[in-house]
Amino acid sequence: MNVFGKHYRTIWVHPENDKIIQIIDQRQLPHFFAIEDICSFDQMINAINEMHLRGAGLIGAAAGYGMYLASLEVMDKPIEFAYEHFEEAGKILIGTRPTAINLERAINRQLDTAKQATSTLELIQQVKKMADHICDEDADFGKRVGENGVTIIEEISRLKAGKPVNILTHCNAGWLALVDYGTALSPIYEAHRRGIPVHVWVDETRPLNQGARLTAWELLHENVPHTIITDNAGGHLMQHGLVDMVITGADRVLSSGDVANKIGTYLKALSAKDNDIPFYVALPSTTFDFCSSENILEVPIEKRDANEIKKISGLFDGRIVEVLLTPEESPAANIAFDVTPAHLITGLITERGICEASKSGIKKLFPENFY
Amino acid sequence: MNVFGKHYRTIWVHPENDKIIQIIDQRQLPHFFAIEDICSFDQMINAINEMHLRGAGLIGAAAGYGMYLASLEVMDKPIEFAYEHFEEAGKILIGTRPTAINLERAINRQLDTAKQATSTLELIQQVKKMADHICDEDADFGKRVGENGVTIIEEISRLKAGKPVNILTHCNAGWLALVDYGTALSPIYEAHRRGIPVHVWVDETRPLNQGARLTAWELLHENVPHTIITDNAGGHLMQHGLVDMVITGADRVLSSGDVANKIGTYLKALSAKDNDIPFYVALPSTTFDFCSSENILEVPIEKRDANEIKKISGLFDGRIVEVLLTPEESPAANIAFDVTPAHLITGLITERGICEASKSGIKKLFPENFY
Repeated sequence: MNVFGKHYRTIWVHPENDKIIQIIDQRQLPHFFAIEDICSFDQMINAINEMHLRGAGLIGAAAGYGMYLASLEVMDKPIEFAYEHFEEAGKILIGTRPTAINLERAINRQLDTAKQATSTLELIQQVKKMADHICDEDADFGKRVGENGVTIIEEISRLKAGKPVNILTHCNAGWLALVDYGTALSPIYEAHRRGIPVHVWVDETRPLNQGARLTAWELLHENVPHTIITDNAGGHLMQHGLVDMVITGADRVLSSGDVANKIGTYLKALSAKDNDIPFYVALPSTTFDFCSSENILEVPIEKRDANEIKKISGLFDGRIVEVLLTPEESPAANIAFDVTPAHLITGLITERGICEASKSGIKKLFPENFY
Repeated sequence: MNVFGKHYRTIWVHPENDKIIQIIDQRQLPHFFAIEDICSFDQMINAINEMHLRGAGLIGAAAGYGMYLASLEVMDKPIEFAYEHFEEAGKILIGTRPTAINLERAINRQLDTAKQATSTLELIQQVKKMADHICDEDADFGKRVGENGVTIIEEISRLKAGKPVNILTHCNAGWLALVDYGTALSPIYEAHRRGIPVHVWVDETRPLNQGARLTAWELLHENVPHTIITDNAGGHLMQHGLVDMVITGADRVLSSGDVANKIGTYLKALSAKDNDIPFYVALPSTTFDFCSSENILEVPIEKRDANEIKKISGLFDGRIVEVLLTPEESPAANIAFDVTPAHLITGLITERGICEASKSGIKKLFPENFY
């Protein structure tokens, strides 16, 4: 998508050195647009852990390239040793962000790819190719999510006789969360391109403010009208008829249709239900978890550092500084995701179309994953 | 309550000069404990507007003393002129915080008091007396809310066989929101005094973080175990059985039992309902609005400056600084309150006892307000 009028993806191979991966350092947004060179597997682990990059799709793409960087570290070693090292790298990677299923999927795809290599050179080449493919696929899925989701916005726009469609979103599920286009924001961008008037309520999304920092920044650069609100405000707006629909992304969608997404999503879904407002979840099919338990209490939920709640970064005097918000001595609990039960969800928007958030609904679109 | 082991109220007359009101400047908490001298009506208006003090009960007490400060400005003038000036002051005061009914109530009580005065000196004396009375009454009501509300905590503690009772609260409805004791926190303090193990989940309460700043600070000074969470987290905790009850305060309670309180309260009430968790609202009866419409969409809801969302204050390098969180150009909407429908509320905890959040429930405790 566009940054100062130029097209960017969120991750790519350095154009002059294919042993370096480049990413947008999202910690510095919206204040500074900085590109970071990722030169080693360890650096990629750190970038994922410390959230230089984030978002289900992008984490998957970063895992793909992370595995590629791991393979480069053993380029002089025999294939057996290389593969062993490669498997180890996968185990380390998988521990970084436990809720995002795209991570696990990308690692598994890379392990399958590597298994078929007969030499280390071939392993590296094939793994690089798969990383590129994961990237292109993610961008393509994002685009198609937009083309499928826009039909819902078009329909509401018709009912509102062209008055702006007010869409609430939580966290960042824009192009910064994927390789390109986004999930929740992709239908919004497509509507905007087609001249359908839209206005986005941007949940700031504490503690890391992916909404206030990233979604607002994206929408600004694409000239989409938007207003930042606190995470507390959505219920009030829905009670007062100021929200026509909700679209969020997802970090893991169970085959039952239950959705793990950024903490707070569940509260918005409850409020949408209470006010008869459609609540959609947009995702590439790589975010489905067809294998795990369907007990929503068993979804792995990432706990992060309490300091992400107690402190916050912002622009002060031309630079980014971190300020303390709470009593130093008070503990904080930083739960990164929650699970929204399927019965609160109007539909899932995927690259293959829109389906009901239920096993039968998902099965209709993705029959190959059900036995 | 206690600050470094010494008892404080949130507002009082300067012990050596009864023309000065002293308050705790809550903007500086939890980083600095500062007492501010309020020497004029205009300064009190500013303190209320800029939230040096806040909280329904305390705003009422501040309005009482604000009217007293206004009366001092015309101490040399004849009673007719003094009363006219006094009425004008009331009109200015009422515009500061439209949702908090205690403000309106305190002003009306002062106007009624002033009407009966036959000289300016008598007006000043009587208005001062009424301001003192509003203060003492508010502290007394807070104490009794605690004594009444603690029975609910005791009961849950019995059912949990003495394991800590996990109570979630939103915003600050502690002693900093009243003159003393608090509303939502008062039963918690009373439970703690009685040796009932409690643990408080403190919603940080964006945008002004009254939870993370004020509630956490209060609980720390009273040695009550607590954990700060984002406003997004309560739903997840409730789904996982980690919340035994919710108690919030209120800024205005309609005679129907619907509750206007800090933005986000409605979302927590929905989640409590969805998870069968008792949701209580604690208030002094001065927070009831027996006169207005019962249409929850007509409750006056304060809109505040967008910069309260776009920027945040915190401790940096030993001082409080304000950092920018969002793109400078993105607009934000700052809605300060929402209304929780009575059917989501388990009960109202008042100084006279606990009642159902309904007209008939409230009528049983406060029959004199119904005709």
